[in-house]
Amino acid sequence: MKTALQHLGDFRWNGVDLLKYKEEDGTFKSITRQVLLKGDQGFPIEMRYFEIGPGGHSTLERHEHTHFVMVIRGKGKALVGDEIVDLAELDVFSVPPQTWHQLQAGGDQPFGFLCMVANERDRPHRPTAEELVELRKNPSIAAFIRS
Amino acid sequence: MKTALQHLGDFRWNGVDLLKYKEEDGTFKSITRQVLLKGDQGFPIEMRYFEIGPGGHSTLERHEHTHFVMVIRGKGKALVGDEIVDLAELDVFSVPPQTWHQLQAGGDQPFGFLCMVANERDRPHRPTAEELVELRKNPSIAAFIRS
Repeated sequence: MKTALQHLGDFRWNGVDLLKYKEEDGTFKSITRQVLLKGDQGFPIEMRYFEIGPGGHSTLERHEHTHFVMVIRGKGKALVGDEIVDLAELDVFSVPPQTWHQLQAGGDQPFGFLCMVANERDRPHRPTAEELVELRKNPSIAAFIRS
Repeated sequence: MKTALQHLGDFRWNGVDLLKYKEEDGTFKSITRQVLLKGDQGFPIEMRYFEIGPGGHSTLERHEHTHFVMVIRGKGKALVGDEIVDLAELDVFSVPPQTWHQLQAGGDQPFGFLCMVANERDRPHRPTAEELVELRKNPSIAAFIRS
């Protein structure tokens, strides 16, 4: 089957490598990345699948580019801006430009989601010490974030 | 929950209308459409969910714009170019520019898939009588297509 990426089970796809989320920097825990589709100049979009293991989380960050996200495995939570969202399978959200966000697995199962982005995108920014102070003024956010 | 589109069950989402696939023209059968996310100029992309009922199919067509597709419900088949692909949950494929394609539900359950496209896109073309003759020279395609 040359056209399709067949799902092989357990959220792995035929011919798709299991990648590191990004270079280890202490800002995330237990995440893998798979690039399912990457378009060319006519549709310069990537469809990625990320999976966070139990107790894991993505980096708290923001950037100019937008994310479109659909949960397809398990349960978790996300900080998006000043909101903490409970997430379950098939829930959908977007992360607008320059919006702080962090995803965390919930429960004892992997938490997996599709994430669509533009091929060309800016690098994420981590919060500065001052921005962390500001974020932590909201007690819900202070209790949630891992950084 | 303002940030996320919560999945309500049965492949419906909070605040998302169930739409017609397109205006009735006899070229498709038993399809619904839901627009889950539509980005702005910074990320001019739509994430849609289509569902084809048992025995149903999409229009046989081609166009310049690209589709990224992930099956998230049931089983089906697709013609993509000159290939007929068996599809099950979590299978992924793209439809390149000017590639004939048609999706059909399989079995007695709904067949549902995400389909990502650019906000600005050309209108689909249906095959001409001559193009249908050409397509039908391939016996597998002749047996598959509904038009």
